[in-house]
Amino acid sequence: MTDTLSAAVVGGSGFTGGELLRLLDGHPEFEIAQATSREYEKKTLGSVHPNLRHLDTRFSDPTDLESVDVLFAATPHGVSMQHIDAFQDAADTVVDLSADFRLDSEEQYDEWYDGHSCPEYLEKSEYALPEINRENLPGADLIAAGGCNATATVLGLKPLFDAGILEGDEQVVVDVKVGSSEGGASAGKASSHAERSGVVRPYAPTGHRHEAEIEQFLGLSVSFTVHAVDMIRGASATCHVFPTGPVSKGDMWGAYRESYDDEPFMRMASGGGGVYRYPEPKAVAGTNFGEVGFEVDPSNKRLVVFSAIDNMMKGSAGQAVHAANVALGLEETAGLEFTGFHPVGAP
Amino acid sequence: MTDTLSAAVVGGSGFTGGELLRLLDGHPEFEIAQATSREYEKKTLGSVHPNLRHLDTRFSDPTDLESVDVLFAATPHGVSMQHIDAFQDAADTVVDLSADFRLDSEEQYDEWYDGHSCPEYLEKSEYALPEINRENLPGADLIAAGGCNATATVLGLKPLFDAGILEGDEQVVVDVKVGSSEGGASAGKASSHAERSGVVRPYAPTGHRHEAEIEQFLGLSVSFTVHAVDMIRGASATCHVFPTGPVSKGDMWGAYRESYDDEPFMRMASGGGGVYRYPEPKAVAGTNFGEVGFEVDPSNKRLVVFSAIDNMMKGSAGQAVHAANVALGLEETAGLEFTGFHPVGAP
Amino acid sequence: MTDTLSAAVVGGSGFTGGELLRLLDGHPEFEIAQATSREYEKKTLGSVHPNLRHLDTRFSDPTDLESVDVLFAATPHGVSMQHIDAFQDAADTVVDLSADFRLDSEEQYDEWYDGHSCPEYLEKSEYALPEINRENLPGADLIAAGGCNATATVLGLKPLFDAGILEGDEQVVVDVKVGSSEGGASAGKASSHAERSGVVRPYAPTGHRHEAEIEQFLGLSVSFTVHAVDMIRGASATCHVFPTGPVSKGDMWGAYRESYDDEPFMRMASGGGGVYRYPEPKAVAGTNFGEVGFEVDPSNKRLVVFSAIDNMMKGSAGQAVHAANVALGLEETAGLEFTGFHPVGAP
Amino acid sequence: MTDTLSAAVVGGSGFTGGELLRLLDGHPEFEIAQATSREYEKKTLGSVHPNLRHLDTRFSDPTDLESVDVLFAATPHGVSMQHIDAFQDAADTVVDLSADFRLDSEEQYDEWYDGHSCPEYLEKSEYALPEINRENLPGADLIAAGGCNATATVLGLKPLFDAGILEGDEQVVVDVKVGSSEGGASAGKASSHAERSGVVRPYAPTGHRHEAEIEQFLGLSVSFTVHAVDMIRGASATCHVFPTGPVSKGDMWGAYRESYDDEPFMRMASGGGGVYRYPEPKAVAGTNFGEVGFEVDPSNKRLVVFSAIDNMMKGSAGQAVHAANVALGLEETAGLEFTGFHPVGAP
Repeated sequence: MTDTLSAAVVGGSGFTGGELLRLLDGHPEFEIAQATSREYEKKTLGSVHPNLRHLDTRFSDPTDLESVDVLFAATPHGVSMQHIDAFQDAADTVVDLSADFRLDSEEQYDEWYDGHSCPEYLEKSEYALPEINRENLPGADLIAAGGCNATATVLGLKPLFDAGILEGDEQVVVDVKVGSSEGGASAGKASSHAERSGVVRPYAPTGHRHEAEIEQFLGLSVSFTVHAVDMIRGASATCHVFPTGPVSKGDMWGAYRESYDDEPFMRMASGGGGVYRYPEPKAVAGTNFGEVGFEVDPSNKRLVVFSAIDNMMKGSAGQAVHAANVALGLEETAGLEFTGFHPVGAP
Repeated sequence: MTDTLSAAVVGGSGFTGGELLRLLDGHPEFEIAQATSREYEKKTLGSVHPNLRHLDTRFSDPTDLESVDVLFAATPHGVSMQHIDAFQDAADTVVDLSADFRLDSEEQYDEWYDGHSCPEYLEKSEYALPEINRENLPGADLIAAGGCNATATVLGLKPLFDAGILEGDEQVVVDVKVGSSEGGASAGKASSHAERSGVVRPYAPTGHRHEAEIEQFLGLSVSFTVHAVDMIRGASATCHVFPTGPVSKGDMWGAYRESYDDEPFMRMASGGGGVYRYPEPKAVAGTNFGEVGFEVDPSNKRLVVFSAIDNMMKGSAGQAVHAANVALGLEETAGLEFTGFHPVGAP
Repeated sequence: MTDTLSAAVVGGSGFTGGELLRLLDGHPEFEIAQATSREYEKKTLGSVHPNLRHLDTRFSDPTDLESVDVLFAATPHGVSMQHIDAFQDAADTVVDLSADFRLDSEEQYDEWYDGHSCPEYLEKSEYALPEINRENLPGADLIAAGGCNATATVLGLKPLFDAGILEGDEQVVVDVKVGSSEGGASAGKASSHAERSGVVRPYAPTGHRHEAEIEQFLGLSVSFTVHAVDMIRGASATCHVFPTGPVSKGDMWGAYRESYDDEPFMRMASGGGGVYRYPEPKAVAGTNFGEVGFEVDPSNKRLVVFSAIDNMMKGSAGQAVHAANVALGLEETAGLEFTGFHPVGAP
Repeated sequence: MTDTLSAAVVGGSGFTGGELLRLLDGHPEFEIAQATSREYEKKTLGSVHPNLRHLDTRFSDPTDLESVDVLFAATPHGVSMQHIDAFQDAADTVVDLSADFRLDSEEQYDEWYDGHSCPEYLEKSEYALPEINRENLPGADLIAAGGCNATATVLGLKPLFDAGILEGDEQVVVDVKVGSSEGGASAGKASSHAERSGVVRPYAPTGHRHEAEIEQFLGLSVSFTVHAVDMIRGASATCHVFPTGPVSKGDMWGAYRESYDDEPFMRMASGGGGVYRYPEPKAVAGTNFGEVGFEVDPSNKRLVVFSAIDNMMKGSAGQAVHAANVALGLEETAGLEFTGFHPVGAP
C-alpha cells in the first residue's frame, strides 16, 4: 500500500465537484486536502452536498491553493485555461474535467469553441478515456477527462473500428438522451422542476461540441443530436450505424468481447430475457460502469448500438478518478467499486 | 346543429378506451350509448377512469352490442378482426384503433403480423391520418386509425415528400421516445413503477411494426428504433434525414407551411427563444395537436426533424374521433379543442 | 347569451397568469383584452406558454392598463396592494390571486405578513371560495381568491363544522403535500429539476401563512405542515381530526353529502374498489374539481379526511374564474368544464 | 480479520432479496453461498437484478437449503413461519425481514394479522432496530428486522421518550410517505408506471400494521397514516407530537444528541441553510443512514419531528445486515459504509 495521496477539488460546490469529493472521501488512497468554492467559502461540504454531512471539511478560496499530489478541476468550460499555471504550481498531476484541454490543436478548438488562452497546452495534455487510451496516462501531468456524451458514444463505437467493422467513412447517427445533472447546479428557467419534468426536449439538435471529441478519437464524422429526458443522472447513446458490408451478430459479439472482456468497468447487455435486456442508464446509475449492447437490423443494413453511462461518473468524476488511478499507478478500480442499485428510479 | 349521434366504445376499460369515453363525453355531437368491458361489466366507468366519476354509465358485456351510429373498437391487436362482422352489424361506421386493418394487403400483413382472419377487409378499410388523407374518409364504413409512432413519423416527414425534398430512396433514421401509456393498462413486471421510472430503455431496437405503416404511406423504408422514457403520455419522433441535394432552412419552412398552415391541429416549433423551442410531448399533452420542427445540419448534410404528439390523443383516441368527425361530416375539431397545459409534468 | 366580457391578466407570464390566460381563451363569455408582463413585453403569449401558441396576443406593459370588465391580478404577494387603485380604475371587478386581500383585518395581516400598504381594503374585499361563500360574490368589486393549501383544507373540513361534528376547539393536524408549480415560474436552486425531483421535503414545517386563512374561515386553529413532493400540479391535504365524541361513517357521509351533493365542482372518493379509492391530485389534475374523502379510525378516536385539488386550478386560476363567474352572474361552470385525464402522470 | 462467513438469501429475486445480495456481495465478511428463487431457479442473479450482472451465482430451489452461517429470509409475510424449522436447521443465525416474528406475543399477532403457525417463536425471536436495542442481538438465533415505516417512526420518537419529553399518553399523529419499492417486485395494476407516477395516494389511511410494532416499542398509541408518493426508495415519517408541557428547541437538540451523537448511521438535519434543511429520503437514498430533524411550533403546542430512511436499506436489507453484524460480533458498519449521492433523483 502506498502512502495516502493528497487531493484538491477546485469547483467543489458544483455537481461534478461534489461527486469528486464523494469519490475521494471513499477512496482508499486519496485524502481530501482542499475543496474550493467562491460562493460557499467557509461553509461545510455538507451544506451543499447532503451526502457529505459527515465531513468536517469546509470550502476554501480558490485563489489560495494548497500544494497537493493531484488537483481535480471541476470548473465551467473556459475557467481552467485561465488558471492552469496556478493548478500546475499546486499539483504534479492535474485532472481537468472541462472541455478546455480535450482537443489536440488550436485549429480544432477554434472550430468548436471561442479562442483558447493557452493553446500550447492542447497538444501537451492527455485526453482520458482509459478503456481506449490508458497507456498514455501514467506520468501525465495534465489530463483532460473525456466528455460524457463523447464517452458514451466512443465506448459504443470504438470496438467496431478495432474489429474492422467500421473504417471511418460510414454513415453514423448518434441520438443521445441525457439527464438534468448535465446542466450543472446553476439552475435556469428551462431546468426548473416544473419545466424540466417529463420532457423529451431536443436541446442540441445539431453541432454539439462533443462531435469534435468523437471525430478526434474515431476519425469519424457523426450526425449527433442530444435530447433532454426525465432523469437526473445518465447518458444513453443510440448509434445507428450503416456499415458498408454485411455484419452478423457473431461479428458484433466478437468485436465487443475482444475489446471489453478484460475491462473492469464495461458490461455487455444485449438481448436475453428479463426487464433489463439492453444498456440503460438506470442500471449503471451511481457506478463507473459503461454498458454496451446492440442489435443487427438486416432489413435496413443497419447496426443499432446502445451505450449507457452515468454522466456524473463514467462521464465525468468517475472517469477523472479512474484516470488519476492509472496516471498514479494505483489499482484502476480503487474507489470506484460500487456496482449499482436495483430497483432504482430516475437517479 | 345535427341530432346527437350515438357512439359505442368496445374495450372501454383500457387506456385508449377511457380516452375515447372522455372525448365522447365532452363532444358536442356524440352521446355515449355503450361502453363494453368483460372484466368490469356492471361497474361504473368511474371505477376504472377516475375522471369519469360524474357519469352514471356502466360497462356492459361486449357480446351484447347495441345498435349505434358509430362504434369505436379499442381492443388489443387481433381482437377486432375476430368481431368485425358484429361491429359492422351494430354500426354503420366502425373506427378501429388497433393495427388489424391498417395495412392494405394480406401480403403486407403477413410480413409483420401473424395470419389475418379476414384479409378481405384490409383493402376495404380506410387508414386514417386525416392531415394526410382526409379525402378518403367521408362515408367510409371501416376506418383504421393510424398508429401512434407511425403518426408522429409521417407527420414529420410527409411535407418533405410533398415539397420534393425527399423522394423515397433517402437514408432516414427515426429514433422514437414513448411514454408508458403505450403499453396499455395491463401491467407486467417491466412496466411497474419501480422498474419503469427513470428509464431510457430500448424496447423495440429494430423491426417495429409501425415501419410497415410508414412504408405504406411514404414509400420510404425507415430505420426505426423505439425507446421507452419516463413519461406517461407522449411520443416524440426524431427523424435524421439525409437528402440527396442541399436543402435550406427556407426550403424546410416552405415545405411545412405549405402542408400545415391550414391544419387545425398542427403547430410549428422550430428554434426561436424561450424554453419550448422545438416540439415536445409535454407541450401537446392532452391535446390532439401535432408539433413539428426541424434543424438543418449542413456539416453532416442532414436534416433533423422533430415531431411530437400525445400518443393517447393524436396517436389513438383523438385521431379516431378526428377521423369520425370527418367521416360523418362534422366539424373537424369538434370535441378536440383542448390546447394543453402549462406548466405540465410527465402526463 | 351575454355580450362578451373583456378581461385582463396582470402578471401574465407566471404560472398562474398563464393558467388564467388558458382559461379565459377557452371561456365562452370572456375575451382576453390584455396580458401584462414587464419581462416579456411585446413577446407573444406562446413564447412563454407553449399551449397558447395559437394566439396572436402579445404581452404589454403593466403600467399601461386598458379599461376592461374584469381584471385578474396574478402577481407575487405584495404587488397588488401597490397597484390596487390602478387596477380598480381599469376594471369594475378586480380578482386578486395573491394573499394581499385575503385576510379581514390589518391586525390579522400583520400577524402573518409585513405591513399592508392599504389596509382599508382588507375589510372591503371579498374572500372567494365559492363552495363556502358564493353568496358574497355577486357585485363584489374586489375579490381575493382563496389560497391553494387553505382551499384544500377548508374544503375538507367545512362540512364537518356545518354538520356539528366539529366545533372549533378540536385538535386538528393538517399535513399537506404540494407540487412544484406552487413555487412559481422563478426558479431557484432548490427548485431545479436535479434538486427537486423525487423529494419528500418539509418546506413549511410550521407557521405556514395559510393557517391564517383557515382560522379566519373555520374559527379553528390547525397544526399545519407542508411537504414538497414530486409532482408539478396538485395539493393534497390530509386532515387528522380528533372529535370530542364518537363519529360514524354514516355521520361523515351525511356531512359531505349535505354540503357537496349539489356542488358542480366537488367529488366524493372514499373507499370502494379500484386504484383510485381516495382523493388524489392526479385524479383532478387540470380540472377545477375538488375531491374529498375520509376514513374513521375508531381505535385512535380519529377522523382522517383527504382533500385533493389542482393548485393551479381550484387552488388559484380556476378558483378565480369561478369567482368571477359568480360575481358577474355567469354560469358557474363556464370555462371550467374539463373533467381530467386518465391515465395521467405527475402533471 | 475473521474468516469469511457464508450467507444465504431465501427469496432472492424480490426487491429486498436483491438488496441483501448487493450488500452481501460488497460485504468484507460475508460470502453469498446461496440465493433461492422458485420462479427464477437456475437463472443468474443478474437476470433479475442488473446491478449483479458481474456475479456467476444462480438462483436455486428454496426447498434445498445449504448449511450456512447466516440465513436471511426475504419472503412475503406468512412464508417464514412455514419454514422456520428448515431455516434454523440450515443456519445458526436466521434474520427474517418479514413481519412474522416482529411481535412479542400471539395475542398481539392475532390483533393485527391472521393466525400464527408457530407462535412459540414470537417470544423467542429478537426484534432488531440496532440503534434502540443492539444489546439484545449478540448470539441471537432468530432476529426479526424492524419494518420500514415503524423504523422511521421509532427513530424519530424514541429519543423524546429517553429524554422524558414524551411519556406515552400524548397525542401523536404520524403521517408517512413511501416509495413504490415498498410494494415489492410483484406488480399489480395500482403499481403500474402509468397509474403510480405522480401520486399522492392514501394507501393505508388507518390501521396500518406497523402501528403494532411502534406501540410494542414505544408503549405509545400513534395515529398512523401512510401515503404513496412518487419515489422508488424511501420512507419519510412526519410525527406531529403534542407534549403535555412546554418543550424548547434546546430540549429537542439535547434529546437527539444524547441518543444519536455516537450512532454511526444517524444524522441530524434540522434547519440551517441550503436546499436540504430537514431529513429527506433523497439525502439517504441507497444508504443505511437515518436522518432526523424537528421544528417546535409553540403556537400549536406541537413538535414536528421529521425522519427519513431508505426503506430498502435502513428499513429492511440494510437493517438486517446491520443486525447480523451486531449479532455475529462484526464491525457494525461493515458493508454499509455508502454515504449517498448528490444530486440524486427519485431513487
